[in-house]
Amino acid sequence: MDAEIVTIGTEIALGQITNTNAQFLADQLSRVGIEIPWQTTTDDEPSRIVAATRHALGRSDLVFVCGGLGPTADDTTMAAVANALGTSLTVNDDHWQQIKQSLKPRFAEVPAENVRQAMYLKGGQWLPNPVGLALGAWYEGKQGVVVVLPGPPREFKAMVTQELMPRLQQHFGTGKAIFSRTLHFFGRPESPLMDDLATITPKWPQVVVTSYVQPLEIQVRLTIHNVDQATAKQQLDGLQEAIARLEPEAFFGAGDDISLAGVVVDLLEQRHLHITAAESLTAGMFQSTLCSIPGASTVFDGGFVTYAAEQKEKMVGVPSSVVTQHGVVSAETAQAMAEGCQKQVDSDIGVGLTGVAGPEALEDQPAGTVWLGLAIKGWPTQTKLLHLQAHNGRQSVREQAAQSALMMVYQALK
Amino acid sequence: MDAEIVTIGTEIALGQITNTNAQFLADQLSRVGIEIPWQTTTDDEPSRIVAATRHALGRSDLVFVCGGLGPTADDTTMAAVANALGTSLTVNDDHWQQIKQSLKPRFAEVPAENVRQAMYLKGGQWLPNPVGLALGAWYEGKQGVVVVLPGPPREFKAMVTQELMPRLQQHFGTGKAIFSRTLHFFGRPESPLMDDLATITPKWPQVVVTSYVQPLEIQVRLTIHNVDQATAKQQLDGLQEAIARLEPEAFFGAGDDISLAGVVVDLLEQRHLHITAAESLTAGMFQSTLCSIPGASTVFDGGFVTYAAEQKEKMVGVPSSVVTQHGVVSAETAQAMAEGCQKQVDSDIGVGLTGVAGPEALEDQPAGTVWLGLAIKGWPTQTKLLHLQAHNGRQSVREQAAQSALMMVYQALK
Repeated sequence: MDAEIVTIGTEIALGQITNTNAQFLADQLSRVGIEIPWQTTTDDEPSRIVAATRHALGRSDLVFVCGGLGPTADDTTMAAVANALGTSLTVNDDHWQQIKQSLKPRFAEVPAENVRQAMYLKGGQWLPNPVGLALGAWYEGKQGVVVVLPGPPREFKAMVTQELMPRLQQHFGTGKAIFSRTLHFFGRPESPLMDDLATITPKWPQVVVTSYVQPLEIQVRLTIHNVDQATAKQQLDGLQEAIARLEPEAFFGAGDDISLAGVVVDLLEQRHLHITAAESLTAGMFQSTLCSIPGASTVFDGGFVTYAAEQKEKMVGVPSSVVTQHGVVSAETAQAMAEGCQKQVDSDIGVGLTGVAGPEALEDQPAGTVWLGLAIKGWPTQTKLLHLQAHNGRQSVREQAAQSALMMVYQALK
Repeated sequence: MDAEIVTIGTEIALGQITNTNAQFLADQLSRVGIEIPWQTTTDDEPSRIVAATRHALGRSDLVFVCGGLGPTADDTTMAAVANALGTSLTVNDDHWQQIKQSLKPRFAEVPAENVRQAMYLKGGQWLPNPVGLALGAWYEGKQGVVVVLPGPPREFKAMVTQELMPRLQQHFGTGKAIFSRTLHFFGRPESPLMDDLATITPKWPQVVVTSYVQPLEIQVRLTIHNVDQATAKQQLDGLQEAIARLEPEAFFGAGDDISLAGVVVDLLEQRHLHITAAESLTAGMFQSTLCSIPGASTVFDGGFVTYAAEQKEKMVGVPSSVVTQHGVVSAETAQAMAEGCQKQVDSDIGVGLTGVAGPEALEDQPAGTVWLGLAIKGWPTQTKLLHLQAHNGRQSVREQAAQSALMMVYQALK
């Protein structure tokens, strides 16, 4: 079955904002085996919304029209879709009462035009909006199914996951036997990683393996069709284990919603360990990334941004002789930073990050050169040299450095 | 003149990556007055590339086909576009020699299929790729102009800005008399800000004012058409000054490529001032954001992440009595953090950030409650209470808090 996503919005057509809704929906649909060969975007002009909807219905069985459901005159999507389908609009009276109720505190009299947000396609069904006012719509016509969804990403995501996906699975039976699992990797480029995996995946011929390059990780999705749940679990578990054994340096977890920082915080919490850091080129990014995870306070008390050489000495006791002798970007400095912060905070683990963010070189070392130090109480301190790609700029070097340090901690804890 | 952007790529169609190229190009085009009512996305299937190109040519005068110019068999865009136009491909021999030269270190023999990247549309012109191997193409046919561009965002942006835009301005005279300027604001929601601006903008009737909501700022673009450069400058300067006077609390600069962190680092550098911070809920994000700016080392030596209460005392000397008496999230704690880090690092300016990132409340204060402290040598310490929107999650609260602290520093320096 072919689907098409039609996005409505002058702000997107003009390039003022990125179309993240289309990506989100396409990803959700491809996870349940619906193909989306076409996406179209147009502005708020009603005649173009009608044309886009008709054109989509001519080549696709399932059309999603997204955005343009606000209460004002330039929000014309629902009416234009009705026009394209040869139907009209109808009001959900209960919902209109609710809208008036919820807007009461803000208006002396709720504007009559807000009734637009209680309208849907006559002959079809309305879709509840879990977090906003505008209803969505579901319409089954002779040319195919048309679904109308709201534009604000928070409302869009909530309606897609809570209302649309269950309905699609019910209607098309798309959920009948598709199971998928996402594996996460960091520290290896995509093509050697996929070449390696190709040496074992043929042993699981039912499982489809696809890779996704993300800014700070490679995701590999395993998908299996037309089997029962027990078989799916057995197959996916088996392949996941084999991959984890094959890629111990790069694999860090499985799941739809995991991050390396989350995995590290969980591991630290399980082991009752505390971590700290002294950061130079990342200047707080490593610690800030850890603390993006709710509950980070159970494993992290605080740390240091030791940007200038004298602060490395003053804050965490890196001897100035180490810096003079070996340079700021050196194994010795990274080691002294890691050990120094660990002692200073009296933590179980101390991480030191020093390197060249760029754009200029430093101490004759090119941008992208980074030393990491990892001090764990009772163990010899490790150091690691990275040569990170610098052509995407300073911020990218710093992000890769922080992620590499998380990976080093993960490897040590595992 | 109507333009259409056709994006080619299975990864985009499947929702694996966001289509940032279309946004970038649409924004560039709308800045020079080219309208883009349509965008289409399809996968790598050649018949769909042909269909999308033909359909676009039927309704638009200027068609951009983006992506699918790699060296492998699934990169078929250039051939499909040739097919849609009824032409064929031709090789730029010099460029093919260069490709072989540059790939030599990686291959015993450069694969013959790489010649695809030296091909362009017969009867048209090739476009140089400033940072990659694949050529672009420019073709003027009877139905309109078709431009073919590479997919990787770094190559795409370089070819658009360095090759395409100058050529468009030359060909269509689009650069004839359009001048624009972007103003940046933080700390006020879009609609009251725009309501305010509407009280003065009618005095500059030639200037078109549009607003763009970004995650951590509101951008307002001023555009003026069909005037000479001197008039444009005079008008834009006049309106910018009036806006800066009207919105002293929210306006922080003008320019296409500026950020609040960059403005703050520049101001500190001009005044020869150094800054430091003690961060709780942001856990290093404020310092990391400052250091995203090249040259931050001239104004920043280092600072502290004082996440746990006892580290606030140990690292920057916040008396435990202050925390017990007033709470971690209080004016008094923010003040003591700001003053403490400023003294500890012997810096001119110290910033303290403490608050509730969420999702849970803390000390009976809801997520989004944040106190900032700002200690400047020789001045009384300021504190500021923020009630940030928490419904977009913990990370958004932390980002807003770091940006608010930058704004507080900017206001004080200005």
